[in-house]
Amino acid sequence: MDQYKVIEVKESVFASNDADAERLRQELKGDKTFLLNLMSSPGAGKTTLLKKTIEALRGDLAMGVMEADIDSDVDAAAISETGVRSIQLHTGGMCHLDADMTRQGLREFGAQDLDLVVLENVGNLVCPAEFDTGAVKNAMILSVPEGHDKPLKYPLIFQVCDVLVISKTDVLPYFDFDMEKVTEYAHMRNPNLKIFPVSAKTGEGMDAWCNWLREEVAEWKCV
Amino acid sequence: MDQYKVIEVKESVFASNDADAERLRQELKGDKTFLLNLMSSPGAGKTTLLKKTIEALRGDLAMGVMEADIDSDVDAAAISETGVRSIQLHTGGMCHLDADMTRQGLREFGAQDLDLVVLENVGNLVCPAEFDTGAVKNAMILSVPEGHDKPLKYPLIFQVCDVLVISKTDVLPYFDFDMEKVTEYAHMRNPNLKIFPVSAKTGEGMDAWCNWLREEVAEWKCV
Repeated sequence: MDQYKVIEVKESVFASNDADAERLRQELKGDKTFLLNLMSSPGAGKTTLLKKTIEALRGDLAMGVMEADIDSDVDAAAISETGVRSIQLHTGGMCHLDADMTRQGLREFGAQDLDLVVLENVGNLVCPAEFDTGAVKNAMILSVPEGHDKPLKYPLIFQVCDVLVISKTDVLPYFDFDMEKVTEYAHMRNPNLKIFPVSAKTGEGMDAWCNWLREEVAEWKCV
Repeated sequence: MDQYKVIEVKESVFASNDADAERLRQELKGDKTFLLNLMSSPGAGKTTLLKKTIEALRGDLAMGVMEADIDSDVDAAAISETGVRSIQLHTGGMCHLDADMTRQGLREFGAQDLDLVVLENVGNLVCPAEFDTGAVKNAMILSVPEGHDKPLKYPLIFQVCDVLVISKTDVLPYFDFDMEKVTEYAHMRNPNLKIFPVSAKTGEGMDAWCNWLREEVAEWKCV
């Protein structure tokens, strides 16, 4: 399958997004589908990391990708080239997705037969972190060119994430990026945050990240 | 002066932000103060570009910098090292500044004796673009590592900006960034957008950007 739909998702009618997100997680549990919410700044490399992750997990897991964006379908187009199921969600100008918007996407998408669905959230370190999408786990990408001070400036997203992928590590020699400092600052925000330095370009670190995903999906399907 | 205040700004009580932004521009005109609203993704290099711009313009213009952030003062601390007047605005979790929040900052700051005030907006390509801050001109930075597809994905910010600074051009050899494509995509959004490729690290392109600023400030003060 190499096509993708574009869906205009509408803001939730539910008063409590948190309760709705919990409901969505239970629905996903029933379907044995693991939903990962992937967040980052624009240009941190979400789509590139996803393409490499799809390659690495292709034999093991049935995967799908939901791309959320204000307005465009360049990401869904890129993902559809990999052959996995993909869909483009348009947020109508909004810079986040809530649980019901995510559910609308999942419904159109048809996710029940998938082991792993990745929601590529809108590129933004602020708003997406404020809304529980109903995902089983939250991951964020911080790219080396963005700098190691980001946990100081965008505390919430580091607090709500389970995993921090530090991307574009192949360009470390060209930037003043301090891996020890970013680890210290990120763990100040969230001592349980797992950190995976990764270069999608060279493949360095991809195994650890993909193994974490495999284990989390296996645990979600079994328990 | 090497100190800076931290101000918690509150959302506007005005029904029409657009009308209030126009009022603020008239107030700035009366004071002969040019306000530049500078926007970008997190980590695109706003603060670094500003520090170099301050160095370049130090002899010519009385400058000040207002740093807006969700929660932190690392940027104001960095700017205050340059010796120009600086202030940190906290938005209380909000990812944008409106005209009245900007005015609150300007009042605390004391800007009447300054030729040029730069408002470093919250790092975000979505929300800040939706609110007129009252600035005389809007500029945005897109850094080379973010990729040349951003005008396709974040149309509004390219539409509302007068200037696009393409930063970190020194790392062009290490990224698949197509300068012709970004120019084409950006001009699709806004045919009048001025584009300045700049490396704050090597200084390349800084003259053209600083000259544009000098000319705009001079025009604002004279007409």
